[in-house]
Amino acid sequence: MTKKNNFNAYSIIAKKRDGKSLTADEINWMVNGLVSGQVEQYQMTALLMAIYLNGMSVAETAALTDAMLYSGKTLKFKGENVVDKHSTGGVGDKASFILGPIAAACGVKVPMMAGRGLGHTGGTVDKVESIKGFKTALTLEQFKKQLDKEKIVLIGQTKDIAPADKIIYGLRDVTATVESIPLITASIMSKKLAEGANGIVMDIKTGEGAFMSDIKNAKALAKSLRDTAKRFNKRMVTYITDMNQPLGNYVGNSLEIIESIETLKGNGPKDLTDISVKLAGAMIYIAKQATSLKEGEAMARESIANGKALAVFKKLIKVQGGDDKVIDDYSRLPLAKVITEVKASKAGYVSSIACKEMGLHCVALGGGRHKASDKVDLGVGFIFKKKVGEKVAKGETLVEIYHNKNQAAIVKDISAAMTKEIKISQAKVASPKLIFEIKEI
Amino acid sequence: MTKKNNFNAYSIIAKKRDGKSLTADEINWMVNGLVSGQVEQYQMTALLMAIYLNGMSVAETAALTDAMLYSGKTLKFKGENVVDKHSTGGVGDKASFILGPIAAACGVKVPMMAGRGLGHTGGTVDKVESIKGFKTALTLEQFKKQLDKEKIVLIGQTKDIAPADKIIYGLRDVTATVESIPLITASIMSKKLAEGANGIVMDIKTGEGAFMSDIKNAKALAKSLRDTAKRFNKRMVTYITDMNQPLGNYVGNSLEIIESIETLKGNGPKDLTDISVKLAGAMIYIAKQATSLKEGEAMARESIANGKALAVFKKLIKVQGGDDKVIDDYSRLPLAKVITEVKASKAGYVSSIACKEMGLHCVALGGGRHKASDKVDLGVGFIFKKKVGEKVAKGETLVEIYHNKNQAAIVKDISAAMTKEIKISQAKVASPKLIFEIKEI
Repeated sequence: MTKKNNFNAYSIIAKKRDGKSLTADEINWMVNGLVSGQVEQYQMTALLMAIYLNGMSVAETAALTDAMLYSGKTLKFKGENVVDKHSTGGVGDKASFILGPIAAACGVKVPMMAGRGLGHTGGTVDKVESIKGFKTALTLEQFKKQLDKEKIVLIGQTKDIAPADKIIYGLRDVTATVESIPLITASIMSKKLAEGANGIVMDIKTGEGAFMSDIKNAKALAKSLRDTAKRFNKRMVTYITDMNQPLGNYVGNSLEIIESIETLKGNGPKDLTDISVKLAGAMIYIAKQATSLKEGEAMARESIANGKALAVFKKLIKVQGGDDKVIDDYSRLPLAKVITEVKASKAGYVSSIACKEMGLHCVALGGGRHKASDKVDLGVGFIFKKKVGEKVAKGETLVEIYHNKNQAAIVKDISAAMTKEIKISQAKVASPKLIFEIKEI
Repeated sequence: MTKKNNFNAYSIIAKKRDGKSLTADEINWMVNGLVSGQVEQYQMTALLMAIYLNGMSVAETAALTDAMLYSGKTLKFKGENVVDKHSTGGVGDKASFILGPIAAACGVKVPMMAGRGLGHTGGTVDKVESIKGFKTALTLEQFKKQLDKEKIVLIGQTKDIAPADKIIYGLRDVTATVESIPLITASIMSKKLAEGANGIVMDIKTGEGAFMSDIKNAKALAKSLRDTAKRFNKRMVTYITDMNQPLGNYVGNSLEIIESIETLKGNGPKDLTDISVKLAGAMIYIAKQATSLKEGEAMARESIANGKALAVFKKLIKVQGGDDKVIDDYSRLPLAKVITEVKASKAGYVSSIACKEMGLHCVALGGGRHKASDKVDLGVGFIFKKKVGEKVAKGETLVEIYHNKNQAAIVKDISAAMTKEIKISQAKVASPKLIFEIKEI
């Protein structure tokens, strides 16, 4: 005799709580209800915790992706050559600025929708805003037009794309439900599918400075992403790469733009160059501009050598209103004026760099955000003069801290902390492995 | 370099999510934060789901009880004879109206704070409001004074007592986190401790019409309640009793008042009389007015036989502004005027009565609530003429439905449903066991 609704939040939550699988309709009802206000946020967070603890099948994850995807506008492009890359984030990860132009120079259309920094990881949108005038707030119409014309476009996240993801991510972020493989999968995939990518290259970071610190979880996420891509009939290559130390040598918004340009000029550090070339090669390959990963990679290296990738980046800056003279004049970036050096307290080999801590130090300097509303200082950051495996003499510079005049006290704290967090051993240390797994579907 | 708060909701949720134990300080911080608004409701529900799925230790449950208890005002009474009873709720459970007066007649002070009906179970406050003029909205000062003077008092839940429980219960109710033993324990115990009881008799219902349908869970809840009582240095007896069919024969607000009065007059059905006498006996015993459960029970029976318990109920009604003439004149109750009989479709023995469904039928008639804001019809309900184990002839009346003139359609639906939900077997059926476990600490 009870009133029979088709669905209600209580019974859907109870089902997942009891470890059962939700139907696509149930998942869709919850996600749409959250957006419309029919489902309360406190109901969604109970469901999110139940999902965190009891998991989701491939079918459920795909259904969640689908529901989030269609909560907003979606773009479609003709042709298979629209390929994006996504990184799960880390410290010093500026690969987008390098691989995007490389891929575009090699015939790929690259629709980049990027986020801002939060917590210990930086954000692509903050970094590119170091370039005076660069506009990331394009409309979807402008985004589409530019992609067709220029083969590359870079915008910030918009409310039009997967609004459900925005709400759900905000809730996960304050309820300890971020590190859930199905939830991460749906969050990433809904946005990538909405922006119209026909293929996606995934860079899943693992190690101390990554959200997925454990390789086992990184592999599970990679599989979940491939499984979901398959359901949506998209090509995907997943990489699992190292984030036990910052990627490259530069950390901080302006500094990372400099290192990106240097890498496009062929002067980049080996780890950053290798990862950028590999990921760009995979993009070229799944965009069917190359017949193998290897060929794609060779094309990528060539586009650096012949300057075409750099030219694409310069053009991208110009087209989006930015100061493209920055390519040849780094003084046009708002880099902090004072440099304090952190010196090695003893001789030996750098054996580890506490990666997450370096990210948090950058946030503490003002270069990142504790919370979404924080303002970011685009000038501060670090140059790591020694990476893991490198030999160092006593008193030699380990890190240059770029900071402002009035930051002496915090720089002192950071220097002291870094001296402990950058470990030096007597024994020789091998350079860490950069890529742990490459899988394709 | 991150800002160090003593506590934050994220890390407390994450700890419980990971199956670790929370400290009393952490639990207290969350509960107080919820009441003050520092902790968001959507954070609390994520924690509640984590507690539901990962459980809580005895120490954590006691800490949660404590935090909820001191979120509001607390009463204290001198002497050990302040004893209350709590039932986890069921269909036709009107035992409070019988055992309260019995216990008070035998020297116990009985501070009753009762709830309203929700879902398939009725509420003591709704039922007593069938008596014209009966006021349940007393202040805590009036509550205390009346208990001292009259030895018995019955009020509805007030915002002053355990306000955190009210918020948390409201959230659990819509997030599928009700049936959690530590959460149930803390909810019950915080209210009972706040009202100043020095001893508590627990009636934990089990069976199809109970919230704890499973005996194993009922036993676990009983143990959790005893463990928590022990931590607070309170005496407790736990009963696990049957709720596979309605308790007594009358279901519905006015009807249950009639059956309660009849039971106090010595004319009650066996199951209701036995449970009331047993529970009242336990109250008398832990209030140290008897030296054993058996002696308490004998005293309880005697108080029915000699009319003292009935006199206490009459006095209680009068003191709280109610029409005490109702004791001898049931026509003063707002009983519904139309009776429709549900007849047996075949001869045999009643083998089961779908208990929860009977409660839901009463709600459907208007006698209960789907949601807290629903209005309750005090007149409608059912008299079960046959209970499980009783012999029935074909065409004999199984149930009398008390309803209003304009309810023909719904009564027809209910009659049809009842014919299926009250099962009749050819073979003889034993009367169900009434009490499954009695334990004392």
